Amino acid sequence: MAKNLSISTLLDFYGNLLTDKQREALELYYNQDFSLAEIAENMDISRQGVRDFIKRGEKQLEEFEEKLQLSKKFAQISGELENLEKGLKDLVKLPVSQSATELILTLSELVKKIENEL
Amino acid sequence: MAKNLSISTLLDFYGNLLTDKQREALELYYNQDFSLAEIAENMDISRQGVRDFIKRGEKQLEEFEEKLQLSKKFAQISGELENLEKGLKDLVKLPVSQSATELILTLSELVKKIENEL
Repeated sequence: MAKNLSISTLLDFYGNLLTDKQREALELYYNQDFSLAEIAENMDISRQGVRDFIKRGEKQLEEFEEKLQLSKKFAQISGELENLEKGLKDLVKLPVSQSATELILTLSELVKKIENEL
Repeated sequence: MAKNLSISTLLDFYGNLLTDKQREALELYYNQDFSLAEIAENMDISRQGVRDFIKRGEKQLEEFEEKLQLSKKFAQISGELENLEKGLKDLVKLPVSQSATELILTLSELVKKIENEL
């Protein structure tokens, strides 16, 4: 069974809309790197049952993203915040006063904080 | 029937997860300011039917937000981007070179662009 790595991202966004079992199976598979056999043992179900939870969960996550596009939107904003951070780094290298330098560093911290919240 | 104004925001985020009828009724009510009677005529259903679509849709939107908290997250980021914009405005008033001023204005535009994408 091929792992679709973007599923891990979608799980962060929409995981709470899945059933507990689907979310559990997907989290063990994608975030904890358990094998199907290990998940089956852990959840006390058959290996085919695990496969079904994962397949159905993946499909639903992809449908949520298709409808809401929030992961795509966040990725775009994340890229723009990186550009902002680069811009502030360039800015601090230009001739500016000490008070301007301090303000630029404060703004850089704020950009990093926002990036971490995405 | 009291209007819950945050529903309009939740509709932007999660509207596509509702049924077409629920979304249509909520959009006419919250975004186009139609009365229940006008929506009933427009959708060719009873006024009680409209009320049911709206109540059920509102409840679902609130459940999506309770589970995903994406509207809350975006609101927080939006506030931080406003602070970033204010900081850049303060920065441009400090003694900085012409090239620094130009870069600050470019970064301000980027912040506004991100705000509009939220």
